[in-house]
Amino acid sequence: MSTLEINAAYYRGNKTFTVEKTAVTPPKKGEVAVRIAFCGICGTDMHVFHGNMDARVGLNRIVGHEMSGVVESIGEGVTGITAGEHVVVRPLDHCGECPACTAGHEHICHKLKFLGLDTDGAMQEIWNVPAHTLHVLPAQLRLDHAALIEPVAVACHDVRRAALKAGEDVVVIGGGPIGILVAMVARDTGGNVVISEVNPHRLAIAQKLGFATVNPKDVDLVGAITTRTGGKGADVVFEVSGTQPGVDAMTAVAATRARIVMVAIHATKPQIDLFQFFWRELELLGARVYEPQDYEKAIEIIASGGVDADTVITDVSPLSEIQASFEGLDSSPTAMKSLIKVGA
Amino acid sequence: MSTLEINAAYYRGNKTFTVEKTAVTPPKKGEVAVRIAFCGICGTDMHVFHGNMDARVGLNRIVGHEMSGVVESIGEGVTGITAGEHVVVRPLDHCGECPACTAGHEHICHKLKFLGLDTDGAMQEIWNVPAHTLHVLPAQLRLDHAALIEPVAVACHDVRRAALKAGEDVVVIGGGPIGILVAMVARDTGGNVVISEVNPHRLAIAQKLGFATVNPKDVDLVGAITTRTGGKGADVVFEVSGTQPGVDAMTAVAATRARIVMVAIHATKPQIDLFQFFWRELELLGARVYEPQDYEKAIEIIASGGVDADTVITDVSPLSEIQASFEGLDSSPTAMKSLIKVGA
Repeated sequence: MSTLEINAAYYRGNKTFTVEKTAVTPPKKGEVAVRIAFCGICGTDMHVFHGNMDARVGLNRIVGHEMSGVVESIGEGVTGITAGEHVVVRPLDHCGECPACTAGHEHICHKLKFLGLDTDGAMQEIWNVPAHTLHVLPAQLRLDHAALIEPVAVACHDVRRAALKAGEDVVVIGGGPIGILVAMVARDTGGNVVISEVNPHRLAIAQKLGFATVNPKDVDLVGAITTRTGGKGADVVFEVSGTQPGVDAMTAVAATRARIVMVAIHATKPQIDLFQFFWRELELLGARVYEPQDYEKAIEIIASGGVDADTVITDVSPLSEIQASFEGLDSSPTAMKSLIKVGA
Repeated sequence: MSTLEINAAYYRGNKTFTVEKTAVTPPKKGEVAVRIAFCGICGTDMHVFHGNMDARVGLNRIVGHEMSGVVESIGEGVTGITAGEHVVVRPLDHCGECPACTAGHEHICHKLKFLGLDTDGAMQEIWNVPAHTLHVLPAQLRLDHAALIEPVAVACHDVRRAALKAGEDVVVIGGGPIGILVAMVARDTGGNVVISEVNPHRLAIAQKLGFATVNPKDVDLVGAITTRTGGKGADVVFEVSGTQPGVDAMTAVAATRARIVMVAIHATKPQIDLFQFFWRELELLGARVYEPQDYEKAIEIIASGGVDADTVITDVSPLSEIQASFEGLDSSPTAMKSLIKVGA
């Protein structure tokens, strides 16, 4: 009997993916084999593509974690999951022993392994994952839409960290893929959302999705928010831009006792107006990845149409075209979320 | 009948106070006249002395707000307070109409008046204040100790903002008068407190008060906290130094999901390691002045001996010596809290 083979996309360095045949390995004890349907390209995957994460991922890595799929087979000792169920993977594997894990914050484990970066990921036809990472989907949820669950779970975590309440005024600074999803989840939670963004293509998408927008290059953002909120300012601010102007704006638009959620990854140390933190008793909350309840919320929002998936997903390509898809996303000013259709 | 006169200390600019006679005015409607016993010199009063706040306070201002006293007489319409009761004043007068007030955050009112800066204060024998600012003291509480209630209420507010729980690891960055009080209130709440301070005189006082200390000029602070906490880091950090090294340390010593309270007033915008906010889901909480419950807690702590008032109060001078007291506090490396005995 010949060994079964599947297609898998390997990152080989130098902005290059190669699609190769690889042998299927059966799921180990505690694992589940998932046949991948769709896998979105994350900003982190773009960082890999650009070579910024070679030290972490190496040059023999299958990336991908924004996925949807169908349970193919089940390893020893796994219960509560059945072949054929539609699933997504929460791609976090924690140690269970560090101070973060013992405090109940497994998602920010000191030794967290991120599946699809620190291990092989979903840009392959069959992916073996720890059973504890699975969330089962409603059967009627479209698998292409389900590939948005992972980034929507990020947004759900951000909004939950903010303790956003219905009727509160929200400013999202940065209208890229994550900013747009944060805005949609914040709106679904009842927030009055304004998106601040400088890229006209992204502004157009935000407007198409029905959001109030401000281009701070054209309009005084602080003045606009002050006017909209009757002098109060924003109750919740999401800083998703990763820029110094964004960090300047986050304190300037904030109401007294506002919560500012730090979604962006700031590689350098920006200057922050700490006086405003003191003066207006602001709160800054870091937010990283997600917890199981954020996944459940994301599934619920996607299933109920709380996120306009068809507008967010701007293109879908087969796995064989993964190289062109990364190159296209890198150069396209209009792309928001690109999916790879991994399965045949 | 001759007009009654009292002694009052006026800030006249140029690092100068003059003690002058002034006519007593009866308390207006809604006011209470308080005969001042003691008044501490706050860091803000030192800023006034140095001329940094001339635009705000002018050159005809009676400063002082860290006071204790006895109710002298009561204005029209005031109920629930009796002449002879021992009191302290929570020196905040809010507008009642701005977004902060309507949201229930009167202490950070957009138009907040701080009594003793924006109005005349307690460095006079009789001080008329709005009745809503009064807190009645237990009769047995010493009035010199009671002059610490205002700064201890600041510390109570800081500790409450941190939601500090018994058994948590605490680092106080900066061991000046407020830092020491924050440390004492945190210890009284059950925290395991370490004070980081570079001034050897302040380190000596902290050690005399029984605190573990680190001089980050001599010892690696992050290494010391990591070792003490078994690799976890501090659950709660109070940044009271107002310096860039303090801001660098606040994220470096923090555990995952740590709460960092911004107590210091940063006049410039320091650089902050926002990546750590994301990575470890840190929280930064601004804290300004106090709310009524912080005053009640401060009274309880002072009355129960939770703060070593006799060590914190390093000298007491009569009102006639206010000039020398400010000059002494300005030049003394060992002074912590100087009181003025305002009454005869």
